[in-house]
Amino acid sequence: MTNIAKGLEGVLFTESKLTFINGSEGILTHLGIPIQEWAEKSTFEELSLALLDGKLPTAAELAHFDAELRANRAVPQQLIDVIQNMPRGVHPMQALRTAVSYLGLLDPQAEEVTPEARRAIATRMIAQFSTIIAAINRAQEGQEIVAPRADLTHAGNYLYMLSGKEPTAEQARLFDIALVLHADHGMNASTFTAIATSSTLSDMYSCITSAIGALKGPLHGGANEAVMDMLDEVGNPEQAEAYITKKLDNKEKIMGVGHRVYKYFDPRSRVLRDYAEVVANKQGKSNYYQILETIEKVVVDRIGSKGIYPNVDFYSGTVYSDLGIRKEYFTPIFALARISGWCASVIEYSRDNRLLRPDAVYSGATDAHYVDIQDRQ
Amino acid sequence: MTNIAKGLEGVLFTESKLTFINGSEGILTHLGIPIQEWAEKSTFEELSLALLDGKLPTAAELAHFDAELRANRAVPQQLIDVIQNMPRGVHPMQALRTAVSYLGLLDPQAEEVTPEARRAIATRMIAQFSTIIAAINRAQEGQEIVAPRADLTHAGNYLYMLSGKEPTAEQARLFDIALVLHADHGMNASTFTAIATSSTLSDMYSCITSAIGALKGPLHGGANEAVMDMLDEVGNPEQAEAYITKKLDNKEKIMGVGHRVYKYFDPRSRVLRDYAEVVANKQGKSNYYQILETIEKVVVDRIGSKGIYPNVDFYSGTVYSDLGIRKEYFTPIFALARISGWCASVIEYSRDNRLLRPDAVYSGATDAHYVDIQDRQ
Repeated sequence: MTNIAKGLEGVLFTESKLTFINGSEGILTHLGIPIQEWAEKSTFEELSLALLDGKLPTAAELAHFDAELRANRAVPQQLIDVIQNMPRGVHPMQALRTAVSYLGLLDPQAEEVTPEARRAIATRMIAQFSTIIAAINRAQEGQEIVAPRADLTHAGNYLYMLSGKEPTAEQARLFDIALVLHADHGMNASTFTAIATSSTLSDMYSCITSAIGALKGPLHGGANEAVMDMLDEVGNPEQAEAYITKKLDNKEKIMGVGHRVYKYFDPRSRVLRDYAEVVANKQGKSNYYQILETIEKVVVDRIGSKGIYPNVDFYSGTVYSDLGIRKEYFTPIFALARISGWCASVIEYSRDNRLLRPDAVYSGATDAHYVDIQDRQ
Repeated sequence: MTNIAKGLEGVLFTESKLTFINGSEGILTHLGIPIQEWAEKSTFEELSLALLDGKLPTAAELAHFDAELRANRAVPQQLIDVIQNMPRGVHPMQALRTAVSYLGLLDPQAEEVTPEARRAIATRMIAQFSTIIAAINRAQEGQEIVAPRADLTHAGNYLYMLSGKEPTAEQARLFDIALVLHADHGMNASTFTAIATSSTLSDMYSCITSAIGALKGPLHGGANEAVMDMLDEVGNPEQAEAYITKKLDNKEKIMGVGHRVYKYFDPRSRVLRDYAEVVANKQGKSNYYQILETIEKVVVDRIGSKGIYPNVDFYSGTVYSDLGIRKEYFTPIFALARISGWCASVIEYSRDNRLLRPDAVYSGATDAHYVDIQDRQ
């Protein structure tokens, strides 16, 4: 019996200095620094730069990077036209994949694959993802596209382009934290797909287009949308305990609960829960929050001992929903954050590149021959 | 020391009944049938259907599939407009990746991921790839796009759309053979990237967009273009022996020679060489052919014993060139053939899907903490 590593689970194929995960203890670090500290003290801009360069930036480096992001927010008018001409009602991730692929046609540097060129393209992409996703959202809803502003933070500018209104400092910071929490997560399927593409020495736009395609799949990027569907299904907090008890009794899958890597609380879910508590203490508990609270309690009591705990998707949907983001756009928002991890991982891998070429066990016919079509059964 | 499977070389991650390769003996089979028999007796249409369904089709099945391909050659006018509006001078594979991604926006079935839906989409994609690639080629050269014809074979119709002139039966059949030879090749990097995308249960357009991005890299799809560059560099047959001898003396890489899998003659290169000989015997030996003949002889004599032999890219470039295909379009032509293998592999994998999630060895800092920016060195 040949040994098949299904899903490549447990297979180590490269080294990385970016992200460390200890699933059984609920630990996630970037550059060795716990995610809780990044969420509390840093910004998406700083974490993106730290991932790209593999170190905490100096004040001058961060100021320079932030200025580059602000200066590169606008996208060519030709791309805006393409986004506006897309049919209505398409899957937002199909639209994002297509727009990013098109952006490659408009970048004179697109074919350069040195680490320096990849980093320059990555910086522009991080800036422009925000503009592209907001433009798709508005175009798909028949609204006029809002041009980016250079005087807002990365997170604040996104919310501004989405609604046409400047967000409060608190909203902008909350969204910033959500982006920080999703910026990188080791060798997930989309990052791995970006690396697989990059391993042929293909260009950055190809790598990121591939990553978007992989993230689009419901086994990867769709979970927080499914959590919102569940919350809407529960309806009101009084039904929550009966709903979840029945689901668990029937051994049905609960959305936003359990993770292939984490067998304890996902540390990112703790950050979001803590935030939700702060909001709840200030404004009163929303229906969504009360439902989540009840589901979490029942799940942890009944199946926490099996290593099944709420993950990051459990709370992120309500946060996005509070910020005015429709659930169809939760996966593009995931991409808006993960672009930094994708780019940083591709650049890191390309410094010691090796073509990815695993193999399949052949289990088909042997010694067969072509049979003339009139002689086939 | 942790064991890292660099490039995932030798790692088995799934089973497949499609393609078997024995590199040390120079054997390649599809469904157990040697590639030589497919090239001699079958067509691209038949091999595509056989790969999709995992069996040799009956006459009725093949007639039905062929009719479907012919009926689906046209692409929506909106996609033609997008192709025509692309900037001139872009990399043809960037254009192809973008056009196929856009095609997904126009397919109402795009989001369906059952094997049946994937197969229906695959059939249309195989038909439409031809139209898209020919349209990109003509649009990029400022020529009017030629609409497909339903009365020609798949290969013949491509050559017709490319030049606007109906090819001879011999030209169409030669191109057909070239497509057959490139239709599938096991777990190469682009097929693997398509599967990685598919493993999140993403849609067919995402899978194929990813595959195009991976094929685009020079470590994968660019080799036959590089062989043509080499032939142009040699210039005339009298220089060939001195050129190749010097390259080998200096231990320089020879394009189209050696393969990660084949340590003997690539059987596909034999089919193409045999064809080239037929042409040479009829029309006299072209300069290109004479150069290749000399290089092959010297390479096999001097380094064949090390397992380095001409591969499929060694001869395919001259075949394409004879058919009026410019070398910038060799990689899109590769995609035109490989679309069948990509689709068949994705469908096969999706029947027993498992999310691909290998891991990296963490080699970065541990126990680090966030340092306030003014306190950094």
